[in-house]
Amino acid sequence: MITGKNYIGDKLSSDSSVSFKTFNPLLNVENNILFFEASDNEIEKSTKLANDAFKKFKQVPTSERSIFLNQISDELKLISDDIVKIYCSETGLSEARCLAELTRTINQLKSFAKLLLEGSFQEVSIDTSIPDRKPVQKPDLRRMLMPIGPVVVFGASNFPLAYSTAGGDTASALAAGCPVILKSHPMHAGTGELVAAAIIRAAKKTNMPNGVFSNLNSKGIEVGVKLVCNSYVKAVGFTGSLKGGRAIYDLASKRENPIPVFAEMGSVNPVLIFPNKLKKEYAELAEKYAKSITIGSGQFCTNPGIIVSFESENFSLFIDKLVEEIENISPSCMLHPNIHKSYNDGLENIKKNKNVAFLTKKDLKLNDNFPKHVISTVTAKKFIEDKNLQHEVFGPSSLLVRCEDKDEMLDVIESMDGQLTGTILAYENDEFLTQEIINALELKVGRIIFNGVPTGVEVCPSMTHGGPYPASTDSRFSAVGTNSIKRWLRPVSFQDFPQNFLPDELKNSNPLSIERSINGITTRNDDSDFKI
Amino acid sequence: MITGKNYIGDKLSSDSSVSFKTFNPLLNVENNILFFEASDNEIEKSTKLANDAFKKFKQVPTSERSIFLNQISDELKLISDDIVKIYCSETGLSEARCLAELTRTINQLKSFAKLLLEGSFQEVSIDTSIPDRKPVQKPDLRRMLMPIGPVVVFGASNFPLAYSTAGGDTASALAAGCPVILKSHPMHAGTGELVAAAIIRAAKKTNMPNGVFSNLNSKGIEVGVKLVCNSYVKAVGFTGSLKGGRAIYDLASKRENPIPVFAEMGSVNPVLIFPNKLKKEYAELAEKYAKSITIGSGQFCTNPGIIVSFESENFSLFIDKLVEEIENISPSCMLHPNIHKSYNDGLENIKKNKNVAFLTKKDLKLNDNFPKHVISTVTAKKFIEDKNLQHEVFGPSSLLVRCEDKDEMLDVIESMDGQLTGTILAYENDEFLTQEIINALELKVGRIIFNGVPTGVEVCPSMTHGGPYPASTDSRFSAVGTNSIKRWLRPVSFQDFPQNFLPDELKNSNPLSIERSINGITTRNDDSDFKI
Repeated sequence: MITGKNYIGDKLSSDSSVSFKTFNPLLNVENNILFFEASDNEIEKSTKLANDAFKKFKQVPTSERSIFLNQISDELKLISDDIVKIYCSETGLSEARCLAELTRTINQLKSFAKLLLEGSFQEVSIDTSIPDRKPVQKPDLRRMLMPIGPVVVFGASNFPLAYSTAGGDTASALAAGCPVILKSHPMHAGTGELVAAAIIRAAKKTNMPNGVFSNLNSKGIEVGVKLVCNSYVKAVGFTGSLKGGRAIYDLASKRENPIPVFAEMGSVNPVLIFPNKLKKEYAELAEKYAKSITIGSGQFCTNPGIIVSFESENFSLFIDKLVEEIENISPSCMLHPNIHKSYNDGLENIKKNKNVAFLTKKDLKLNDNFPKHVISTVTAKKFIEDKNLQHEVFGPSSLLVRCEDKDEMLDVIESMDGQLTGTILAYENDEFLTQEIINALELKVGRIIFNGVPTGVEVCPSMTHGGPYPASTDSRFSAVGTNSIKRWLRPVSFQDFPQNFLPDELKNSNPLSIERSINGITTRNDDSDFKI
Repeated sequence: MITGKNYIGDKLSSDSSVSFKTFNPLLNVENNILFFEASDNEIEKSTKLANDAFKKFKQVPTSERSIFLNQISDELKLISDDIVKIYCSETGLSEARCLAELTRTINQLKSFAKLLLEGSFQEVSIDTSIPDRKPVQKPDLRRMLMPIGPVVVFGASNFPLAYSTAGGDTASALAAGCPVILKSHPMHAGTGELVAAAIIRAAKKTNMPNGVFSNLNSKGIEVGVKLVCNSYVKAVGFTGSLKGGRAIYDLASKRENPIPVFAEMGSVNPVLIFPNKLKKEYAELAEKYAKSITIGSGQFCTNPGIIVSFESENFSLFIDKLVEEIENISPSCMLHPNIHKSYNDGLENIKKNKNVAFLTKKDLKLNDNFPKHVISTVTAKKFIEDKNLQHEVFGPSSLLVRCEDKDEMLDVIESMDGQLTGTILAYENDEFLTQEIINALELKVGRIIFNGVPTGVEVCPSMTHGGPYPASTDSRFSAVGTNSIKRWLRPVSFQDFPQNFLPDELKNSNPLSIERSINGITTRNDDSDFKI
């Protein structure tokens, strides 16, 4: 049952008189349930509770945190039917998409549960003492990563499960030992509450401290602003627009004690197509990219927004085919009228540049929430002149940039801001594909793809989902994959510490049997290493 | 020969008419050499050159970067006599201190040179493809850390060698593959130029791209401000005051493209003394801490500024002995009249609190630059009430805080801001020493020490020199030790990439024979791992 209330730790609460409803974009009507925005008192309570819970939670052995994460995934599986129902009504997305996202969310939780048992994420390093070193003895130093404190996670509009309530940010923060205060996304507050309830049940069943998780509703930005400025909060995870992410980053940087913000703000994900590939495969590529541009109504942060190639007959054939393909795909509704409006505003912004030609004509306006599929094109020269054309247009649209030669392609790449991804479509022996172009693209991105599509973010240790600003606020970390746990950890060194006061991870006996670096050698050994 | 000019890459340059001299605090007179502040044109040239150099430098194999770093250390050894001469005249510090710092600086360079050959710092991870995975095939993903771009390093007043021109920030940034623009500290611009010249010679001899290093002089803050705001600059390293570090952080956060700032801003480094230890060793502890408080005239960021224990006869005995010991130590001169003035201002600030008693009387005023050694004391209650008492007083002073009981000691710890270090002086079985107190202290610090002194920062992989704000602006990184290289690196993932376009680190054949994680297993194997 969805109550519309906030979870302040394990207590349902609705202090405030401010309320709102979610929206069914497919039916183009509001849903019934009334949600109550978190009050100042509820914000204060939940953060204080998180701070108290942190002191206990950070001491909970990693093996028990692992059980907690697995329990969350079990609880989610049990309510998958309920999740599908509310998810579809709040997003207009299909049941299949919901189930795929739920599976990914569950797998993310499980991968962190596994990581916790494996232990290498703590980067344990031990340098033993050298008592007779001159001029002074070398002390015993032992270092490991420790949780940073309570984390605020903002739910994302476009992934109500995988990047929201029990999504990657929450799973990695809980795995790290950080309590989470979830700022639920107002577009899918019902899905959020169901998932939050599952986390709360899991926390209770596995005896986690109360306050390890809270879920706060909000209609506008106020709750988020107050959370980012709250002194108990030690870090923030966010997935969304550049405008939203930057606002949060600015607030966090201006605090008396600034805190890190990991905002993944999307990008235009440039795709470079090389001549030989285009010649032989233009039709297949057009088909593949028509799908990649329109999947999820283009509401993916890895959507290919810019496609770059060389002026040629083959590029023209590709463009014509892409227009044909994309017009043959039925539009699917966007998440919310506001998102559709932003999409249209983004297109209008591009239209201001009279050098851009719009090639798609069709507008299957099923209702207000169904977007046009849009392909537009511009020369490299005009593209480079107008920074406006680089702004992400969140939706099923792509701008095709036509270069005269290799140097112009290099100029296009160098003119671009930071990106989540960059893609190269080429045969390896294409004479236009130089190491210089690859290097230039690599400097701009977090992930570089060869002969694929940028949409689809594999969850594995080698994934980087992030990139130079404005793709993310901190390019040194990934928002996806097990390495994302590093965002919520900081190193602490113990000098000449007695064994009984050391964390288990640092004890000679290696009671957790984890991988450690001892005097520079990676090992899972126990104290035999200390008897030299 | 010291010219007083800036190094714009390998060219000496002095555009500006603004000039200044360094100061000999021991003789209390200005030194002779005239230094020329970097002009706007020189700032622009050096950063542009660094950006151009970056594209080449990042492609230089790690083995060659290693040779470059070793060459810098060789060049420094060759000019150690010259360095000693100018160092002592610009700081008032002793020849022995200079040589110790030079040795440390050389060892730091060598440790990064070694790290570059070992390769694990790049965190190479390979997840091979699973072509038949359902519902979609798993791509091949390979991830490694890559350099972030040109770095600005601010020289530190208190360590002209180890934390300045060729110090830890520069060594780690060059090791990472990032060109460095050094904002030389005006108090030791001569030492800075000598060291810069050594780096430039090393760069030439090892064929590094011109622009990999520049050295800019400045009298005031303007050059630093312009460098932090320069669009070619991608990160900043700083060691100094909270005021300076925060100003740089604020500038960097307000940029259109914000960049990371690693400012290590010092702290008061609380020391907790427990009853049994005090009872048996008060005299030895007093002797040890009198030295730790006054070493280098207290101009260490790890100086023990706050000492906390329980009201007792033994604590009184310790305090009396500490006063006696510290008054028997001859003062050594501070780095500069301005630093001595700041120290006196800091003491005046504490004196405003009428609950603080000043116990030391002696003032051996050899000249204006010789500071008083100061021990003061206050009750825990009054300490907690006045945040002012927690401000770092950079110099040979310590405030002793007297607690009624364990709870009050816990309150003192919890009232404190982030610290570089926290120290526990205790026997393991002391009934007052609880896990709760250790945990509370650990939350506040980057390094926690048992029965030692915080001064003296070991350079090794397990060192953390950093801590929660305001000890540093980013507690997730260390400024000392080989892990400090992580500050200048970001992950990049390669998806389904052809072998010939992959960096050597990611190729199946493992041509560099480095440690890599392949499908979760740590190995130095070559492509046998890919033939399964």
